[in-house]
Amino acid sequence: MIPYRRIRLTVSYDGTAYAGWQRQRNAPSVQETLERALHSLTGEQAAIVGASRTDAGVHALGQVAHFDTRSRIPPEKFCFALNTRLPDDIRVVASQQVSPAFHARYGARGKTYRYQIHNSPHASALYRLQRAHVAPPLDVERMRRAALPVLGEHDFRAFAAAGGQSRGTVRDITRLDIRREGALIDITVEGRSFLYNMVRILAGSLIYIGQGKLPEDALARALESGDRLDLGITAPAHGLTLMEVRYDG
Amino acid sequence: MIPYRRIRLTVSYDGTAYAGWQRQRNAPSVQETLERALHSLTGEQAAIVGASRTDAGVHALGQVAHFDTRSRIPPEKFCFALNTRLPDDIRVVASQQVSPAFHARYGARGKTYRYQIHNSPHASALYRLQRAHVAPPLDVERMRRAALPVLGEHDFRAFAAAGGQSRGTVRDITRLDIRREGALIDITVEGRSFLYNMVRILAGSLIYIGQGKLPEDALARALESGDRLDLGITAPAHGLTLMEVRYDG
Repeated sequence: MIPYRRIRLTVSYDGTAYAGWQRQRNAPSVQETLERALHSLTGEQAAIVGASRTDAGVHALGQVAHFDTRSRIPPEKFCFALNTRLPDDIRVVASQQVSPAFHARYGARGKTYRYQIHNSPHASALYRLQRAHVAPPLDVERMRRAALPVLGEHDFRAFAAAGGQSRGTVRDITRLDIRREGALIDITVEGRSFLYNMVRILAGSLIYIGQGKLPEDALARALESGDRLDLGITAPAHGLTLMEVRYDG
Repeated sequence: MIPYRRIRLTVSYDGTAYAGWQRQRNAPSVQETLERALHSLTGEQAAIVGASRTDAGVHALGQVAHFDTRSRIPPEKFCFALNTRLPDDIRVVASQQVSPAFHARYGARGKTYRYQIHNSPHASALYRLQRAHVAPPLDVERMRRAALPVLGEHDFRAFAAAGGQSRGTVRDITRLDIRREGALIDITVEGRSFLYNMVRILAGSLIYIGQGKLPEDALARALESGDRLDLGITAPAHGLTLMEVRYDG
């Protein structure tokens, strides 16, 4: 019998039509759609484990996932073979064999998320699916100054949505930069892992700070107080994209 | 009786679902969708004249259009009022009263188009609607060198699709730049006006030159020969966006 091999996938998806990464009872998920495509390809019922359980509406440019298979398909061909069985809002961009010790979720050493904003008096048809529209002008310099205290290791319990299941609330943000090009503002955040909704709460708070709805030291204060009420809204899901997941080696 | 006033609109649209700007017999067009929204708002049957008759699948960030109305709606409110009656893949981003001498099409002094490419071995779900996917690596420096001779006033008959109705084929390209950021390549072209499919033929030819499928002097040669066969494919419509239309004053 052919032994199991572990395959690693890099997956992009437009989250608009999905109830998120994770398999759900009554709604289409990215995971289930991938698992069905894999089943139709190999005949096996394999679970596909994703690095990040992105929420409904959240996109991915570089989600990473793994599964085990006894299929004889060459590892690098899964990419092509799965794409012919997937809707075009999910595309596998790479596939390779990895060690059985590789785990997409528990082995992840870092993740990069990008929160995209369209800052203009009126919404644009072209940005509606991948950027949050914010009408009042945002002061990006103020947002940058406000973001500084968040860098590094802190207790982020104020940034965690109710419903999160994380045991600890200490996280380490290794990068947070805010780039503006005309009406487009991108907030890029890197860290080993994040609390549930943490990036969207951070983005929503930075948007409020940029509008002057929250004081410039709101993030610093929330880190001290641990109080969710010191922060702004959870920014809409469709503005968020999982850019990349990093592993050792 | 209230006199007619001329209103200028700036319109963004995601061209994916439309058979182009121009009213068609059996397919939804952006123009018709806007005219219907206007009719439901004012009760008038006004024609909306667009600066550019973008093709099926082509997008716009800043299409300009005008219409005449006797409605008492303040000019700057048309923007909000029309948006409540439009699908979210068409958004009016500005409205203002202009002189009756203003004409969106005949008065245009310059247009900017952007052709967007995703240059990566595999297509990405997130770019599928607004970027042409090109798998072979593109040599952007070669494309830049090849593009130089196109700048300025030339007879562009080699760059005109059959079916175009332009009387002359001399056009003036005032800007052509090619920007790469990772896997994303944007070709930005400015000129007073363009022949039918000219920007897409230019983009398709630059893609071929970047892949080495056409010689580096292909554009220069085609300007001399006037022969469409010296050029590459007409690049796919969904990669093209009308960015801006400029007027005097």
